[in-house]
Amino acid sequence: MITAYAAESAGAAFAPISYEPGPLAADAVEIAVKHCGICHSDLSMWQNEWGMSRYPFVPGHEVVGTVSVVGEGVKHLRVGQRVGLGWQSGYCMTCPTCMGGDHNLCGQAKGTIIGRHGGFADKVRAQAASVVALPDGLDMASAGPLLCAGITVFNPLVQFAIKPTDKVGVVGIGGLGHLALQFVRAWGCEVTAFTSSQSKADEARSFGAQQVVDSRDPEALKAVAGQFDLIISTVNVKLDWNTYVAALKPKGRLHLVGATLEPLNLQVFPMLMGQRSVSASPVGSPKVMAEMLAFAALHNIKAQTEHYSFAQINEAMARVESGQARYRVVLDRD
Amino acid sequence: MITAYAAESAGAAFAPISYEPGPLAADAVEIAVKHCGICHSDLSMWQNEWGMSRYPFVPGHEVVGTVSVVGEGVKHLRVGQRVGLGWQSGYCMTCPTCMGGDHNLCGQAKGTIIGRHGGFADKVRAQAASVVALPDGLDMASAGPLLCAGITVFNPLVQFAIKPTDKVGVVGIGGLGHLALQFVRAWGCEVTAFTSSQSKADEARSFGAQQVVDSRDPEALKAVAGQFDLIISTVNVKLDWNTYVAALKPKGRLHLVGATLEPLNLQVFPMLMGQRSVSASPVGSPKVMAEMLAFAALHNIKAQTEHYSFAQINEAMARVESGQARYRVVLDRD
Repeated sequence: MITAYAAESAGAAFAPISYEPGPLAADAVEIAVKHCGICHSDLSMWQNEWGMSRYPFVPGHEVVGTVSVVGEGVKHLRVGQRVGLGWQSGYCMTCPTCMGGDHNLCGQAKGTIIGRHGGFADKVRAQAASVVALPDGLDMASAGPLLCAGITVFNPLVQFAIKPTDKVGVVGIGGLGHLALQFVRAWGCEVTAFTSSQSKADEARSFGAQQVVDSRDPEALKAVAGQFDLIISTVNVKLDWNTYVAALKPKGRLHLVGATLEPLNLQVFPMLMGQRSVSASPVGSPKVMAEMLAFAALHNIKAQTEHYSFAQINEAMARVESGQARYRVVLDRD
Repeated sequence: MITAYAAESAGAAFAPISYEPGPLAADAVEIAVKHCGICHSDLSMWQNEWGMSRYPFVPGHEVVGTVSVVGEGVKHLRVGQRVGLGWQSGYCMTCPTCMGGDHNLCGQAKGTIIGRHGGFADKVRAQAASVVALPDGLDMASAGPLLCAGITVFNPLVQFAIKPTDKVGVVGIGGLGHLALQFVRAWGCEVTAFTSSQSKADEARSFGAQQVVDSRDPEALKAVAGQFDLIISTVNVKLDWNTYVAALKPKGRLHLVGATLEPLNLQVFPMLMGQRSVSASPVGSPKVMAEMLAFAALHNIKAQTEHYSFAQINEAMARVESGQARYRVVLDRD
């Protein structure tokens, strides 16, 4: 039996439930959950904002724990090993995308909290290929947010072969952005934070930003025209994207990791004159997740976290919903 | 003295003029014009569609000829050499973009027909760095369109390191598109033509397309979802861009070389799920132009051209304006 915290309907309070997970698949592992980060997408799924939630709904896709059982076909993980599980809990493993190492883009990828129960639980299961070993020295209590927020902002640096000599901007200094600043700084790049919250300017500098730009000030945005090789936007609201395109150098890229619902009203001419790109991506592959965790351990990159016990889940979700958390909320097993 | 064909005002008929070009700059060459292609942008500039034309206006930026005079500082070109001149006739040569080999993205790049007189003339001058030598064996009479239309569609293959195993789509089978099909085919790729003109389907196949998709048929577009690594759009009208993004494989790119004025209303979610990019670019650098010309000579890639004498310029411009030319109009010196 697995004990989890579930909401019975969209936005309803969380309460304990128990469910029988059945036999463990040969390619799966069961994880004894120690910590689980709360991501804004847990909130969106809980409230069925994307119309694909099933109830009872168990959130949780920034899972940190130890392997408790391994399926009979699993060879690369062992019982007791420290592991993490993120947004995706399984891949087809054989499509060209998976075979090419881009498992996170697999059309058949399973979401950890989509149509199945997630990590706000004492145990959670996943295809072993989607579960990543934590490197020695990585702090378990703060590792959860690396598994979704962290990989999402780290992955573009790998995908687009960002060089330490590149200049990078990070738009939105929240759960994703505060990790992005640390990763980009450790990558060796000059990094600029774009934030509408001047209360975050000093903190952005503490996370590595050498420059902070007020994203609500059109003049400040104009002043950085032509400066960046890469701008990573972590926000999920509509911005004046053409202003950010204008902030790119020739051959620069505006890359979105926030799932903005409103279309991008991009002007073609400024893109064309500078051979500029606009793109977006989701999380990262297990291989890149392992690289990200090793890089985080090496450079002491950590989410700044607020902690609640699993029993305080309703309070913790309210904290995330408030938008006031600095910068990520994590549930801990007692 | 240089004799040229000029329009005295927006859309006015062309008539001969003479002008005194003054001393030749040390870094410039003078070209004796043999042929000059007519590009749709000559038409747009003639009619002042972009609001930046100066009159008397002399079009012509697909110039083929021989060097008649070299400036005293010019070392890499000699009198009598066969050369071409495209959309750009000068660069700053020292900004990071030029120093990085991306002269075509130089913020100070001079347009051959912007604020100066172009190639519908007996002679035209340009900074020698912007003038490319024609390889032996390249047919002069049909080379003009390679210098603007050709480089514009060839350059993305270089910029994005397209591999022969990639699948490429070309949207719009006109002056640019019919060259794109030939280049992509010779590059080794499987190539698909998207055209709204079924009268062009057979011709598209003759230029190398293995597949032709009716771009006005939503069902046909849906049927190619997820197929392409790269789609090059040559059109300058608004299409349902999200349909073309959907036609990309994971990590695919929709690249625009047509200067569409209406913004791109791109949905973020399909880009994000597949790590897809949308981008645009102008012409190409002199280095890539030289590579393009060598590649065209090697693979016998030619614009399909209709020919008029320079004295027939008004008739020739009307032919371009009709949209009926198959596929490119060239003016020839008698």
